Amino acid sequence: MGSSLITKKRIAKSLKQLMKQKEFEHISITEIMKYAQMRRQSFYTYFIDNDDLLEWIFETELKEQVSDNLAYISSEQLIEQLCFFFSDNHYFYKKLFALDRQNRFRQYFDSYCETVIDKYLTDHANFEIDDTKREIFKRYHATAISGIFHQILREKTTDRTALKVLAKTVTTCLAGSLFAIKK
Amino acid sequence: MGSSLITKKRIAKSLKQLMKQKEFEHISITEIMKYAQMRRQSFYTYFIDNDDLLEWIFETELKEQVSDNLAYISSEQLIEQLCFFFSDNHYFYKKLFALDRQNRFRQYFDSYCETVIDKYLTDHANFEIDDTKREIFKRYHATAISGIFHQILREKTTDRTALKVLAKTVTTCLAGSLFAIKK
Repeated sequence: MGSSLITKKRIAKSLKQLMKQKEFEHISITEIMKYAQMRRQSFYTYFIDNDDLLEWIFETELKEQVSDNLAYISSEQLIEQLCFFFSDNHYFYKKLFALDRQNRFRQYFDSYCETVIDKYLTDHANFEIDDTKREIFKRYHATAISGIFHQILREKTTDRTALKVLAKTVTTCLAGSLFAIKK
Repeated sequence: MGSSLITKKRIAKSLKQLMKQKEFEHISITEIMKYAQMRRQSFYTYFIDNDDLLEWIFETELKEQVSDNLAYISSEQLIEQLCFFFSDNHYFYKKLFALDRQNRFRQYFDSYCETVIDKYLTDHANFEIDDTKREIFKRYHATAISGIFHQILREKTTDRTALKVLAKTVTTCLAGSLFAIKK
């Protein structure tokens, strides 16, 4: 399992590198494996096809960025880190969402954004909020941060200072809203 | 011009009524005009085709609901009124967004949501906010309220009390965020 993950990541890295230069639809398995310096046939030990690989990268990266971090960093750090992550990987995620005909990735992504807001509420809401308001708060801000991440992808913002201001303004909006809900 | 608007609205009402029963793609101009009790040929005096009519309804209604109200009601009232409006017209807008292959309607809609947040800022921000933060605030909350309106369409919420709680929670989030940005 350990070595399988390492190999999968090697293949994934190869696809991500190739996507910097060309469109996903024009990338063949032969190319991916050549770039990874591996035998073409080995691809099928790990993935069914290109789409399967794309999906695996998406799920694995979001899991690493969001789920695996939940217990270790504050929600403010998580939001800033996600801004940096999407900025660094904008070429990949922008293309991925453009391919997303059935809004499958988008829905998956939005559910991760809800997880981020859930964490924010767990970190900070040391008081009772009624369930309806909590649900509205969660969806309201999850949609908003999803929009912010998509904006980072569109605008290809890479300036770290600008991204920090963005993340800080977002968490300020969140903090203010939570404080107002509390009253 | 006055009578032209009345006739256009009559034709529009006819399409909207028919869309309660069947899909847009299956509605013919003959049907629309029969329902409106008008001659089929008159349709072309006002609209090019079904799509043109659909677009006209969308633009005209949003203009009436948002732009025309900007000077007369508070942003809180505007948000509540929009919640009621989308709830009352969910059958129409839900189908319209489902037809929206190039996200044309969605983009137009989001720009109206930005207008609502702009009004909120004009109504309440009696202090200086730097341009970057103002822009982030605007996009953040515009995306969030757009998400809330789309949720109303999806869930077909019609309970007025629930919609009032929704609108109130949204404006509380907005107020809190603005207060926090101010500090």
